[in-house]
Amino acid sequence: MKIKVINPNTTWEMTKGIEHAAKSAARQGTEILAVSPEMGPVSIESYYDEYLAIPGVLEEIRKGDREGVDAYVIACYGDPGLHAARELTHAPVIGIAEASMYMASMLAARFSIVTVLPRIKTMLEELVAGYGMGHRVISIRTTPLSVLDFEKDPAKGMEVLAQEGRRAVEEDHAEAILLGCAGMAEFADRLEQELQVPVFDGVVAAVKFAEAVVDLGKTTSKLKTYKYPEKKKFIGAMSPFADINS
Amino acid sequence: MKIKVINPNTTWEMTKGIEHAAKSAARQGTEILAVSPEMGPVSIESYYDEYLAIPGVLEEIRKGDREGVDAYVIACYGDPGLHAARELTHAPVIGIAEASMYMASMLAARFSIVTVLPRIKTMLEELVAGYGMGHRVISIRTTPLSVLDFEKDPAKGMEVLAQEGRRAVEEDHAEAILLGCAGMAEFADRLEQELQVPVFDGVVAAVKFAEAVVDLGKTTSKLKTYKYPEKKKFIGAMSPFADINS
Amino acid sequence: MKIKVINPNTTWEMTKGIEHAAKSAARQGTEILAVSPEMGPVSIESYYDEYLAIPGVLEEIRKGDREGVDAYVIACYGDPGLHAARELTHAPVIGIAEASMYMASMLAARFSIVTVLPRIKTMLEELVAGYGMGHRVISIRTTPLSVLDFEKDPAKGMEVLAQEGRRAVEEDHAEAILLGCAGMAEFADRLEQELQVPVFDGVVAAVKFAEAVVDLGKTTSKLKTYKYPEKKKFIGAMSPFADINS
Amino acid sequence: MKIKVINPNTTWEMTKGIEHAAKSAARQGTEILAVSPEMGPVSIESYYDEYLAIPGVLEEIRKGDREGVDAYVIACYGDPGLHAARELTHAPVIGIAEASMYMASMLAARFSIVTVLPRIKTMLEELVAGYGMGHRVISIRTTPLSVLDFEKDPAKGMEVLAQEGRRAVEEDHAEAILLGCAGMAEFADRLEQELQVPVFDGVVAAVKFAEAVVDLGKTTSKLKTYKYPEKKKFIGAMSPFADINS
Amino acid sequence: MKIKVINPNTTWEMTKGIEHAAKSAARQGTEILAVSPEMGPVSIESYYDEYLAIPGVLEEIRKGDREGVDAYVIACYGDPGLHAARELTHAPVIGIAEASMYMASMLAARFSIVTVLPRIKTMLEELVAGYGMGHRVISIRTTPLSVLDFEKDPAKGMEVLAQEGRRAVEEDHAEAILLGCAGMAEFADRLEQELQVPVFDGVVAAVKFAEAVVDLGKTTSKLKTYKYPEKKKFIGAMSPFADINS
Amino acid sequence: MKIKVINPNTTWEMTKGIEHAAKSAARQGTEILAVSPEMGPVSIESYYDEYLAIPGVLEEIRKGDREGVDAYVIACYGDPGLHAARELTHAPVIGIAEASMYMASMLAARFSIVTVLPRIKTMLEELVAGYGMGHRVISIRTTPLSVLDFEKDPAKGMEVLAQEGRRAVEEDHAEAILLGCAGMAEFADRLEQELQVPVFDGVVAAVKFAEAVVDLGKTTSKLKTYKYPEKKKFIGAMSPFADINS
Repeated sequence: MKIKVINPNTTWEMTKGIEHAAKSAARQGTEILAVSPEMGPVSIESYYDEYLAIPGVLEEIRKGDREGVDAYVIACYGDPGLHAARELTHAPVIGIAEASMYMASMLAARFSIVTVLPRIKTMLEELVAGYGMGHRVISIRTTPLSVLDFEKDPAKGMEVLAQEGRRAVEEDHAEAILLGCAGMAEFADRLEQELQVPVFDGVVAAVKFAEAVVDLGKTTSKLKTYKYPEKKKFIGAMSPFADINS
Repeated sequence: MKIKVINPNTTWEMTKGIEHAAKSAARQGTEILAVSPEMGPVSIESYYDEYLAIPGVLEEIRKGDREGVDAYVIACYGDPGLHAARELTHAPVIGIAEASMYMASMLAARFSIVTVLPRIKTMLEELVAGYGMGHRVISIRTTPLSVLDFEKDPAKGMEVLAQEGRRAVEEDHAEAILLGCAGMAEFADRLEQELQVPVFDGVVAAVKFAEAVVDLGKTTSKLKTYKYPEKKKFIGAMSPFADINS
Repeated sequence: MKIKVINPNTTWEMTKGIEHAAKSAARQGTEILAVSPEMGPVSIESYYDEYLAIPGVLEEIRKGDREGVDAYVIACYGDPGLHAARELTHAPVIGIAEASMYMASMLAARFSIVTVLPRIKTMLEELVAGYGMGHRVISIRTTPLSVLDFEKDPAKGMEVLAQEGRRAVEEDHAEAILLGCAGMAEFADRLEQELQVPVFDGVVAAVKFAEAVVDLGKTTSKLKTYKYPEKKKFIGAMSPFADINS
Repeated sequence: MKIKVINPNTTWEMTKGIEHAAKSAARQGTEILAVSPEMGPVSIESYYDEYLAIPGVLEEIRKGDREGVDAYVIACYGDPGLHAARELTHAPVIGIAEASMYMASMLAARFSIVTVLPRIKTMLEELVAGYGMGHRVISIRTTPLSVLDFEKDPAKGMEVLAQEGRRAVEEDHAEAILLGCAGMAEFADRLEQELQVPVFDGVVAAVKFAEAVVDLGKTTSKLKTYKYPEKKKFIGAMSPFADINS
Repeated sequence: MKIKVINPNTTWEMTKGIEHAAKSAARQGTEILAVSPEMGPVSIESYYDEYLAIPGVLEEIRKGDREGVDAYVIACYGDPGLHAARELTHAPVIGIAEASMYMASMLAARFSIVTVLPRIKTMLEELVAGYGMGHRVISIRTTPLSVLDFEKDPAKGMEVLAQEGRRAVEEDHAEAILLGCAGMAEFADRLEQELQVPVFDGVVAAVKFAEAVVDLGKTTSKLKTYKYPEKKKFIGAMSPFADINS
Repeated sequence: MKIKVINPNTTWEMTKGIEHAAKSAARQGTEILAVSPEMGPVSIESYYDEYLAIPGVLEEIRKGDREGVDAYVIACYGDPGLHAARELTHAPVIGIAEASMYMASMLAARFSIVTVLPRIKTMLEELVAGYGMGHRVISIRTTPLSVLDFEKDPAKGMEVLAQEGRRAVEEDHAEAILLGCAGMAEFADRLEQELQVPVFDGVVAAVKFAEAVVDLGKTTSKLKTYKYPEKKKFIGAMSPFADINS
């Protein structure tokens, strides 16, 4: 099967890391197609960045359907554009935040999310509430590092993650840690060893869930909420988006 | 004061109607600047449409700050891009959905939203929950008409709204009706007469709230969640968005 | 238009302060009628005080309807008697707590309420939950000062408010502060300067919302919950309340 | 022990009925003191009525403490003034609504409240939510009869209660019925026979809970929320309320 | 009347203590029958222990119905098997956790539970949420002691309870303390004296509620959720459970 | 890898059906070990049945750890004993109810559960709430058929499921159907064809999630809630359960 992993930001080095994580998790016979959109921000750390990354994500979904993609993973911990992506294709679309939370819920009673800059916290609170996971997520801990800081100085990134992860375990009594950024996949194993609790990276969780769903032949319900969008005119820079498969 | 009312879709006839409603509500001395973005869909009836309307909305915010705008109204009943808009400017930004719900809450104990196509229902449920208004909104009723159907055949639109509004009052025991689409402003008065309960159009509610907030000199908190977005590179069709005022 | 601002306690010095705040916020052409009831406690710091203040508030509503009042503001941060007041008149009635929370919600993602004595905390928690604002109010901070302490020693009041406000910002990560007592209006501006986050006084917020609602010609829904009370006999000290306008 | 059952309205015939129910439930050695306040409305069917009944209720609490009362029951299904009453005395104060819900929760998984006029519904929804009982109360059903209609025409009252009770069982799948008015106590037994599900009258439930609490020597926590009210001046018709025991 | 108090664990010394507490609370004429099951764990400190205690509890219910029992109390602070017990008999069945929370709710606005080992915390959080008491329970505090540690070294138990109880009052602002283990009944009075807030033991609360319910002749609703279990075959060690009274 | 699928009831014909479903879903290399416990009820349709099935389930977990099992699936739609099972082993344990809800959440916005007898409804409501899925599950529909009725007369079972499934889609606007009983797996495909919406059987969903989790090497967090149970004495029929691996 072919799983397209879309890194919604346009930093290709980060996409490489995500691809590496996804491939290490995929089973034999699963083809991983990791991409960044051709438009959008180099990192996502605000509602502004998130919304401006979504058109690029949707373009990759549309292209994917022509590439014979069986399932999609949206690899940014805000699950940007998830619901729109589900409208646009019948293939399953899985966000790494939802995947990490559902998987963690099957292995730990209470857990924490450790993520990038403080301003992200409200976004994640709304996301967690929207998934009905407010009673499982015992804390959301931010760091002073931006998304690209983690790319540029992984040693520093690891240090900061370990520090906040430890606080989550010791002060908040988290029983597992969820990595709140797709670029943190590389730290998962070391962090798990250091903290001695399960550490969940959403990229690998989403890839495995995508395999599971495709194996079962399940596709997105097109009955009402996720029906194909109505065909209509788009103008300006958005004109190409009038072209919907359905 | 100058209030910029942004119709997130690109149907200028509809923007005219919104402008008319906004101006009729504005007090003397309030300048209404009603616009449609230069990019995006002609109507918004899905997550797909909504996300693809947001870049255009944000562009209008950015332009607005250079035009001396005092407050913004986002005139689509999904409040598209609201949080990102608040990041982008220090001026107040008000969505018509939130405005209608807050205003209705001060005048009615329980109310219903009457809106366009059935597929919109889940979007509105999430929106209502996000504003903490789940206990006030007693039902969300949809119609078989699209956004542009209401534009094209207002007589039919009025008929359908009256029908669903009446059901909301009689079957769901709604004590007020909220119009779930910016293009419905024109029906508010007649509907109120026909149903004999308060009918709230979000456009006029938002304009009045904007005046209120500007009068008090209140602006968006730039402390954390709504800080200006970090400056960064954007590529492709999104390149222009790298240019943030702050 | 004529807005009657009712200070539910009977401390006229405090009513003067509230009147001053209301007038400073009102636009030209808005007449502010600030009153204290002729019966009730000199301050409100318990359920006991609150309930015993309500008959006086309702009397002022009843009188107001004969005075040609267009809208009412209940100027105590428990919104005492709000729902009963809405039953008693068709004119809009706005509580300062709800007004401050709705306005703050349009300008800040998370905020704190700073208020008087510790015993008030449970009352405010219930109030916040009732308005569906539990996810926005990040903390409720009390002070050792009573309502009248703030009147008697404003310097001390300012000091204590600044202290708790700072803690709300620094420890709880509040992005705005709401003043949890009508008598605190005078501190709003200085506090805003000192804390560098928006500070919301409910009195001015409610006055502006009242203007907005009256401008739009909106009145309370009299369909069911807020119908005029059934006419009936009242005995003893409550006999005068049998006289309902409707 | 001495239990004072306060009927918050001033209809003495109804108080007699409540007294009868309370005495039939009280065990030997429990003295029931059933009273109506000396001020207030003859029935309670709105927020207006409720708030104007509370001063009378509080006066009865104050008097009760001088009469050697061991526990109080507030016998109106809105639990009017409950929290203020708890501030005013160290003796336990129990509302009939809370008592009926807690007792029903120990005997039935899901239940309905059947009550008087439609306008009461929102009041009861807020009450139920405040007690955390929203998941247990499967429906609130109103009748076209007022409180005094039930007094005047008990045959009609019984008929209407049976009708709505049956609908609650058959349509809403209620497994027990709660009588949403203190004046309905007399119908409980017949209704239980007719509907073949447990029917709970709050008056008797509250009396039994009061006995239970007094037996254990438990009293209201005076630590914070329910501390005695601060001593202060009251003016006008409320002057007598300055006199607090504590 | 005959109340059977079932200590779900098989430590008879603890059952003696529970019997003592129950008898001290029961009024004259109430016969207390305190038992431990003939199968199950010596203490309950995990989901594992809890589930393995339930068959023994249910056997005691079944036997009780043949012994003429009027009401049952399940005396372990997880209310193990409560819903199944209600299916198995028409007599009321009351859990000590629910009883303590409902009673405390009538006497204190906010309270804390102090209990045994840290691992219990999630179990209690789910229990509290299930009863709709999440807004009343301000904290759940655990101790390093196991159930049997409290039996073996009561002096140490008292010390630890006092310490955590004090923290609950001072740091969490609890206005009452609930003892989160049936074996803690003996500490209630001393703790109440030491902390100067009401301390609730669930055993005595449940016994009094059982008396109240039996006095009123109320029994479990057998309409739907708590119908007698369908008769069916059980195999292996569970074979005896095929024998249901109904 | 070896996945042990435990049918908590003791009807071996049903276990065969579950085994068939599990094997059809498992990928090459996954060994499915489908078992029924050696003790317990032949079907689960009440809290009573559920609790009496759990010891048998736990015995199978304990045995499984000695059999080299990599992950467990509990194949009854109440997820009986799930949390205890997680305490007992470090291997992942997945319930079919949680699996079906998490998977459905990734493919449909709103869905319904169709299940057996009406008495099950409250149990499922609590289950759904416990997983935070209350906003996704739009209705729970029951049928007049028992678990074994579906085994005995599959044609009738299919008819009834199709009928309630259709109502869920047409009346409740469900966008997917979840089969609320492990024995319904065989109907999934035909039902999906007939209703034209995704139909989720929890058995296959759980097997795929188990594969996913094992592939990633993730195991249950043993930090706090799911620590191994404390070693202790068990008496009577429960004596064998003292023997815990850890």
